[in-house]
Amino acid sequence: MKLKIPSLDLSDGLRKVLNVVSSRSTIPVLSNVLLKAANGHLSLSTTDLEVSITTSIEAKIEEEGETTLPAKKFGQIVSTLPTGEVTLETDASMTSTISCNQARFKIMGLDSSEYPKEAAVEEDRKLTFSKVELGKIFRKISYAVSTDQTRYVLNGILLSIREGNFTAVATDGRRLALVEKILEDANSALDGDVILPIKVVNELMKLLDGEGDVVVKLSDSRALFDLGDTQIITKLVEGTYPNYRQVIPASFKNTSVVNRDILFEVLNRVSIVVTDGASSVKARLENTSIILSATSSDVGEASEPLEHSYEGEPSNIAFNPAYLKDPLRTLECDEITLKFNDEFKPVVILGDEGFLYVIMPMRN
Amino acid sequence: MKLKIPSLDLSDGLRKVLNVVSSRSTIPVLSNVLLKAANGHLSLSTTDLEVSITTSIEAKIEEEGETTLPAKKFGQIVSTLPTGEVTLETDASMTSTISCNQARFKIMGLDSSEYPKEAAVEEDRKLTFSKVELGKIFRKISYAVSTDQTRYVLNGILLSIREGNFTAVATDGRRLALVEKILEDANSALDGDVILPIKVVNELMKLLDGEGDVVVKLSDSRALFDLGDTQIITKLVEGTYPNYRQVIPASFKNTSVVNRDILFEVLNRVSIVVTDGASSVKARLENTSIILSATSSDVGEASEPLEHSYEGEPSNIAFNPAYLKDPLRTLECDEITLKFNDEFKPVVILGDEGFLYVIMPMRN
Repeated sequence: MKLKIPSLDLSDGLRKVLNVVSSRSTIPVLSNVLLKAANGHLSLSTTDLEVSITTSIEAKIEEEGETTLPAKKFGQIVSTLPTGEVTLETDASMTSTISCNQARFKIMGLDSSEYPKEAAVEEDRKLTFSKVELGKIFRKISYAVSTDQTRYVLNGILLSIREGNFTAVATDGRRLALVEKILEDANSALDGDVILPIKVVNELMKLLDGEGDVVVKLSDSRALFDLGDTQIITKLVEGTYPNYRQVIPASFKNTSVVNRDILFEVLNRVSIVVTDGASSVKARLENTSIILSATSSDVGEASEPLEHSYEGEPSNIAFNPAYLKDPLRTLECDEITLKFNDEFKPVVILGDEGFLYVIMPMRN
Repeated sequence: MKLKIPSLDLSDGLRKVLNVVSSRSTIPVLSNVLLKAANGHLSLSTTDLEVSITTSIEAKIEEEGETTLPAKKFGQIVSTLPTGEVTLETDASMTSTISCNQARFKIMGLDSSEYPKEAAVEEDRKLTFSKVELGKIFRKISYAVSTDQTRYVLNGILLSIREGNFTAVATDGRRLALVEKILEDANSALDGDVILPIKVVNELMKLLDGEGDVVVKLSDSRALFDLGDTQIITKLVEGTYPNYRQVIPASFKNTSVVNRDILFEVLNRVSIVVTDGASSVKARLENTSIILSATSSDVGEASEPLEHSYEGEPSNIAFNPAYLKDPLRTLECDEITLKFNDEFKPVVILGDEGFLYVIMPMRN
């Protein structure tokens, strides 16, 4: 294999694939990046056997071929190279010479035949989003994914399609976040549920920016995200996601509309006196104002009022402040709407179009 | 105690004193900041019984007095307050009410009588530096301080004054960094050595910026740094600093002058293949070029030449790359000078005025 490629392009491409590599794998070749030179392109691939990423970069291919290189060291080398043309040449013993201006490296690789092959994803169902849109959907809900390893179906994000409605859902059992969207190319053949591992969602959030679309192809056991120059394939989480619809109340007695930035700022201040995860911030909702307050036996107390527009009875509700901050931080709307029945029943937060958040109040 | 103070001024002042506070102290009042309101100023003090910092801020004092407040929580509260005037009022039970616009906190403090008193530093010897100059002196040598707790005199920075010459020295036994400066107000009464704990040096590096002077007052057991609005007092490290002069060779056979940025960049690249702290980067010094190279059995090899101007014999020297990077990173000069005799004897690096670095070559 021999090729020439601008150092910035190579650095950019490596950045996209390096996060997937596990440095602690017991299979040595999984610490490496697979390089394939053919048809005027260099492709770079990494996998942890759950998530695989491949990206393709234009290059002057002087001799087609394949090799693998230790991902972390190769990434470090490329990131320190000066701006210029990199020459990469691999000999029969799988040693690659990397040179750029006066710098010269000889790095030992492993034969590409050891690298696990990823079968193609059979295209059962296909969805198209703009990259920006899918990135925002994930950012608005991914914080709510459970980190409890014993509830593995909740360690992922549910993508559910029903009669032209697409819903992305995350929950850890204490709060639930979802984004709904009506699909343009509705089609009953698309109906079904898949659960994405949070790892692939985290990778996608880094890559889903800029112009263009992402095509999502779903099969029973895997999903493919095609970003044009980059493809990500992931295994799906096996199991059945809980029926999240049943936690959303059908009707509400009280509705508060409040400025998102101001609520976030006041909540941030008042929650400083909360010193452990079991303590709450209390909200007193009255005609024209919400008064947030908190008390802890070792620090003291805090309180601050803010304006809202309210239709309902004077009420008291207590929240875990961390659960209330998450959607306030990630939404983009100016105002959010809080809907609830009483201090014991689930509270719903509405904000950006299609977004819905459910939080259980805390007992005082 | 009752006072009014702009929130930004209070936040600024707290930032200066908060680093000293230990959150794990067994003496509860040491987790607190001491507040004193008198003479149109609020003073804020913290101490860990080794280093003490006091800063003074203009304030509208409505009732003079003292209290202490939990430093970390008070800092968090003040940093989230909106821009505006803060009212701080302490009652007889040492509970302080902090209010700003609509936000209101009641925080429990401890009586200021529990706070340890810092005696004044007897002014044996006095030196004056510009803040920027002393900050730069510390930054150019502090990385070389030993972290080996068993060699406690090397855990500090030596300030040595001899016949109008001021020298600041740091060493960990493998390399040594010093900055020398001729004092303007030379005076044999100033002669003597003190060892500053690295903790006070780290605090000073954060505070020594902007216009103005710092006055350093030294006694046998303590040092005071007076920055105008802020005073830092530290205990000195007891013990005798080793005779660092004896490791500096008196004469040299070979001298290389090389661009500092380029040497740093090439060294950064070549040292990527070095995978453990015991491995070296080799320098081959020839007539017009230095060739840096490194080899490791698990990664491969790297080499890159760079230009220098050389007076000496063709030579090979091996370095620990981390020790060579430290001065290259912190100096400001365009070119550095390397002086040495052979591959076994100490190598000296000269750069900014008054700076001298000694490094032992590694055996191959």
